[in-house]
Amino acid sequence: MTVEQGRNAKGTRGRPRSEAVERAILEGVVKLFEDGVPLADISVERIARTAGVGKATIYRRWSGKEEIFVDVLRGLEEPPATLPGTSMRDDLVVLVERIRRRGLNMRSSALLHNVFAQMKSLPKLWDVYHETVIEPQRRVVRDVLRRGVENGELRADVDLVLANELFVGPMLVRAVLRPNDPLDDDLAARIVDTVLEGMRPRK
Amino acid sequence: MTVEQGRNAKGTRGRPRSEAVERAILEGVVKLFEDGVPLADISVERIARTAGVGKATIYRRWSGKEEIFVDVLRGLEEPPATLPGTSMRDDLVVLVERIRRRGLNMRSSALLHNVFAQMKSLPKLWDVYHETVIEPQRRVVRDVLRRGVENGELRADVDLVLANELFVGPMLVRAVLRPNDPLDDDLAARIVDTVLEGMRPRK
Repeated sequence: MTVEQGRNAKGTRGRPRSEAVERAILEGVVKLFEDGVPLADISVERIARTAGVGKATIYRRWSGKEEIFVDVLRGLEEPPATLPGTSMRDDLVVLVERIRRRGLNMRSSALLHNVFAQMKSLPKLWDVYHETVIEPQRRVVRDVLRRGVENGELRADVDLVLANELFVGPMLVRAVLRPNDPLDDDLAARIVDTVLEGMRPRK
Repeated sequence: MTVEQGRNAKGTRGRPRSEAVERAILEGVVKLFEDGVPLADISVERIARTAGVGKATIYRRWSGKEEIFVDVLRGLEEPPATLPGTSMRDDLVVLVERIRRRGLNMRSSALLHNVFAQMKSLPKLWDVYHETVIEPQRRVVRDVLRRGVENGELRADVDLVLANELFVGPMLVRAVLRPNDPLDDDLAARIVDTVLEGMRPRK
């Protein structure tokens, strides 16, 4: 569940009640992030104290603080992209555009910027984030590329892992590694079309 | 100067003497890195103490610890790539290959991995590193691309900033953001050739 969804949960009884507890826990972590507490200093104990619950309540829902952090980050993400399905090209533009928007969010949110800056120092958090957020997105791109090979939009001899990085890599680099470079509105379409077309002049 | 060059300096007098002092300072910082001391905990004072010199000796050479860190990192880099100059394509392969090798170094060196993981939490260090290490490399790529437009290897209507990221981005992503993905020997050539050729099937 996401922080947003949690906000709509009613604290009556049974499952909704449980959602209210989860919401309190996740919002407590957001508060710690916002206060600039280093991730390494946030323990399950501290999360429990912030949310006013016992540690056991937390461990019934998550196996450790990394899983909680990832749920918080997921709650701050946009919902999954809806693919137009009109062509591989159009689907790719939507998926690359999503990376651009995540980049814009990251630039405007001190919280996100701060959390991601620390992420690489916490290999376990990085692993959980990678497995539960990044990998599913890569699979979506892979499926779109596979359909492109089937319908003739993509050369059949292309390595799909490499293709994935050719379409996604330039935007990721711009969004994550080059915070001062522009993220223009039409960047996703330009990347996808240029990679499809190639940069060698056509005679 | 680099740590490697420093190693050959003789501690006699004048400039060589000064190089021996610089070497001692830089190697002291390498030692702190190797001991896993967090970058945030390394002050100019601590560097001075480790190297057995006064703070003034350090400030005569560097304006702050960020500049020292970047000099250490630069000393651990391979020397600049020698461009074959036979074609834009061949020059690009050499430049992208250099990123692949930096990725391999990063994966095998706990020290480098550790320092880069912390880099994003230290914006000033990131800025100095970007300006003195990354920017000059981007300029080299840009010059190569410009020559490619001149000699007809690259479409003249292509945005050169975007082109830079299309060639360099996929390798950067693989090397820096996807530490578990393979960095095959022929990856640089495959990226450059695929981006030049495009991924749309040719009729």
